[in-house]
Amino acid sequence: MARVELPAPVADLILQLRRLPGVGPRSAERMALWILQEKDGAALKLSTVLGSTRERMGFCPDCGFFAEIIDEKPVCRVCVDHGRDRSMICVVEQPTDVLPMERTGSYRGLYHVLGGRLAPLDHVGPEDLKIPALIRRAAETGVVEVILALSSDVEGEATASYLMELLRPVGVRVSRIAQGMPAGSGLDSADEVSLSRAMAYRVAFSHVPMQG
Amino acid sequence: MARVELPAPVADLILQLRRLPGVGPRSAERMALWILQEKDGAALKLSTVLGSTRERMGFCPDCGFFAEIIDEKPVCRVCVDHGRDRSMICVVEQPTDVLPMERTGSYRGLYHVLGGRLAPLDHVGPEDLKIPALIRRAAETGVVEVILALSSDVEGEATASYLMELLRPVGVRVSRIAQGMPAGSGLDSADEVSLSRAMAYRVAFSHVPMQG
Repeated sequence: MARVELPAPVADLILQLRRLPGVGPRSAERMALWILQEKDGAALKLSTVLGSTRERMGFCPDCGFFAEIIDEKPVCRVCVDHGRDRSMICVVEQPTDVLPMERTGSYRGLYHVLGGRLAPLDHVGPEDLKIPALIRRAAETGVVEVILALSSDVEGEATASYLMELLRPVGVRVSRIAQGMPAGSGLDSADEVSLSRAMAYRVAFSHVPMQG
Repeated sequence: MARVELPAPVADLILQLRRLPGVGPRSAERMALWILQEKDGAALKLSTVLGSTRERMGFCPDCGFFAEIIDEKPVCRVCVDHGRDRSMICVVEQPTDVLPMERTGSYRGLYHVLGGRLAPLDHVGPEDLKIPALIRRAAETGVVEVILALSSDVEGEATASYLMELLRPVGVRVSRIAQGMPAGSGLDSADEVSLSRAMAYRVAFSHVPMQG
């Protein structure tokens, strides 16, 4: 009697699923089971979309946001929009970070996607981020302000400081999105770090926020 | 200026990824980003495997374990193995549960995959599980023992009790895998439930375990 192993096609499927970010052995197994058992063609649909997305989508060579491939060229909806304020560049970590910013409806400028943040422990250094392109864009005629909209954690802070140093000689205004109390929460539910930052960055009661 | 949304191909990809079990909006976004950025063809490989697995794999019509499709027929490596002890049927919840059991090397009988367990809160009733087929198989000539190897939680226990009632009239021996202290752990690290079960099911020191 031979000990039974996972048949090759399932083992293969699990192996490939495990390459997805955040997917461990147990969740890959559950996904594989679902793929083998679901009854409405979702697995095939996922396969098709997975196979075609890379041909249909790319990244904007200027700002790094998602760009649809039209006539073999990436077209970025932000950069081609002539209604955008070209004097402002908002720096974010990932292409998906553009969406929450857009949803606020309070920003009308351009973006620059870094592709991550400085994270020495994960071996992400300056050479892994789109920093030279940012400096080049910031130096272009008409650019007035670069807004750093990075994560409010240690690595995001370090990346912001690093960029600040590089952007200083360019002569543009460099700002950072505010940190403080999240909207709609009381002092009792605020975490210590947010609260101490809210104190440190407190503003005069008559203060009018920077125009977006 | 139009507010920028996720381009359709990425939105589509995220939508399909979210159908995978355990994948929420944030992890689908991270997966989509990875799929668009990875550089060694892993996304395409995953697409291919996803598209072909369903043609190459099915489930054994007898025991419910994975079965490779050979000449358009599902072939189960357990059921076709003549070296297996056909007097014993081990009942498990999922096809993947067969593997840890096989890895122990201590079981040489057949399997029966229920396809889940009774879970009223998730609307899983007896009609959703392969119970009639189990009763039929248990009644076949030569079957001596049915071993219930279900989860050791409330739903697993309830399913075991339910099956026990149905199997009693069949006249086979019905057993359940033991519950108690996990191997290699001290009393200080054992959870209360395991420890109280280990006490309740304690065995005489000279006890020889049932032959597998």
